[in-house]
Amino acid sequence: MQIGLVGLGRMGAGMARRLALGGVRAVCWDRDDAARAALAGAANIECAENLAALCARLDGERVLLLMLPAGEAIEDTIRELLPLTSAGDTLVDGGNSYYRDSMRRAMALSQQGLRYIDAGVSGGIHGEAHGYCLMLGGTPKSIEIFAPAARVLAPHAESGWLHCGPSGAGHYAKMVHNGIEYGMMQALAEGFALLAARKDLDIDPARLAETWRYGSVVRSWLLELCAGILKDNESLAGIAPVVADSGEGRWTVAESIELGVPTPVITLALMSRFSSQGSSDFARRLLAMMRARFGGHATQPG
Amino acid sequence: MQIGLVGLGRMGAGMARRLALGGVRAVCWDRDDAARAALAGAANIECAENLAALCARLDGERVLLLMLPAGEAIEDTIRELLPLTSAGDTLVDGGNSYYRDSMRRAMALSQQGLRYIDAGVSGGIHGEAHGYCLMLGGTPKSIEIFAPAARVLAPHAESGWLHCGPSGAGHYAKMVHNGIEYGMMQALAEGFALLAARKDLDIDPARLAETWRYGSVVRSWLLELCAGILKDNESLAGIAPVVADSGEGRWTVAESIELGVPTPVITLALMSRFSSQGSSDFARRLLAMMRARFGGHATQPG
Repeated sequence: MQIGLVGLGRMGAGMARRLALGGVRAVCWDRDDAARAALAGAANIECAENLAALCARLDGERVLLLMLPAGEAIEDTIRELLPLTSAGDTLVDGGNSYYRDSMRRAMALSQQGLRYIDAGVSGGIHGEAHGYCLMLGGTPKSIEIFAPAARVLAPHAESGWLHCGPSGAGHYAKMVHNGIEYGMMQALAEGFALLAARKDLDIDPARLAETWRYGSVVRSWLLELCAGILKDNESLAGIAPVVADSGEGRWTVAESIELGVPTPVITLALMSRFSSQGSSDFARRLLAMMRARFGGHATQPG
Repeated sequence: MQIGLVGLGRMGAGMARRLALGGVRAVCWDRDDAARAALAGAANIECAENLAALCARLDGERVLLLMLPAGEAIEDTIRELLPLTSAGDTLVDGGNSYYRDSMRRAMALSQQGLRYIDAGVSGGIHGEAHGYCLMLGGTPKSIEIFAPAARVLAPHAESGWLHCGPSGAGHYAKMVHNGIEYGMMQALAEGFALLAARKDLDIDPARLAETWRYGSVVRSWLLELCAGILKDNESLAGIAPVVADSGEGRWTVAESIELGVPTPVITLALMSRFSSQGSSDFARRLLAMMRARFGGHATQPG
């Protein structure tokens, strides 16, 4: 099999190497010269000088895996690819696109004879070694075309990847996955904060996390990450208490609102990230001032 | 090694069998005749007719593992055991006791020459086969005495059990573990509710959960349970939407308040359980009535 891979960031580069190792010829491109250079010379990997060259180097019906940021980057790249591709080619969006965008793109591209797969990809930087979990949306035919690559990318040929449903279902599944991830991460973080606050009990949080990996109800991959993080730096010194969020948490909560299906914990986990970014500061200042005005309580300068 | 085991409920009975299988002679007692009868005749397991007989059948310095509900049951049993035990004996509370009770008990028992271990135990009904995760609080000497049993009960001889710290540290660690568990469970449940609400996307939640087990960020033992639950009964028909809570969630939140360390997601997961038990109904009725009074909005009879 051969595949075109566009976008050689942390995820894309790892996927290129995993595909190549699995015997899939990967023709790659990234607009960043350094990203291309980092992969040059690897067995089974070719770097093209531009998108047109990438498309030209692939024989027959092309499969193009796009590992790009959601939003403008993927939208622009699909537009650029349109004149370079032919009916029967398959575009796979492996980024974290909003599932409604994926539904729209699948519809629009199908009218030009192009196949489209929305592929939710989980596994982060560890996916290269352990395999990526793939959630795929699209027609049965398009999934059949991409399946050989999915079998290589996934942790196992027959598990860790799924044809979830029609277009949009892959990115919807990934959106929900990330919403769950927000809640699980927050629960773990809160628990370890309670452990850290009781120095008198002398509990080594890294050793406890390591212990929980065996037989406990909370055993999980995120717990394993916590064990490693706390082993390296128990006090988390030098790490700013600021947690970024990407689109998926917000979309999960928006979906919850649209459906009228409560997701209180996922929502609060998202709100906690907003707070960490400083966006609670106006409300907090106002709260401090209300206390000052009604009760004469001192405020802090800041 | 030999051990006295008091309390043959789901956890206690499983632990008795795991200990016996691991070569530890287990002398057991439960106030329920049927619980004793269920274990009678198993190799390496003896059932005593009462607590006094149990203590009499153990040679030398006794180790007594108490697998009893927190609160009165454990308090009463310790009181009954006092005249039956001798200085040097070790009592291990493997229930979900409040860590402050465990600190108090350890102090009181030490004044009578008895050793005391607070043992947080996780693993539920699966622990018998896979091993129990043990979080132990107590003196180094008491842990040394109990270690041979811990090595058999844990998933592996040298992992899955930990001397967390002084008395109280074991049950504190278990309390935090369960708080994390509340949050993780709620996050998973909310995510699967969003999947279930979008029938049009045709996502099989059991197959998706199964897929997430491989390479995804949310892979966890609780996810494995969800995969099995949804495979057996995708619509969850016949299950009342009522979630019980035991003490540990409440203690975690109380600890958060006492320390002034926020645990918003764990707290909300607990509150969501309260809601499921019907305890939001008064507030909801009042809300419905406020809408009726200010906006003329109809209420539902109920």
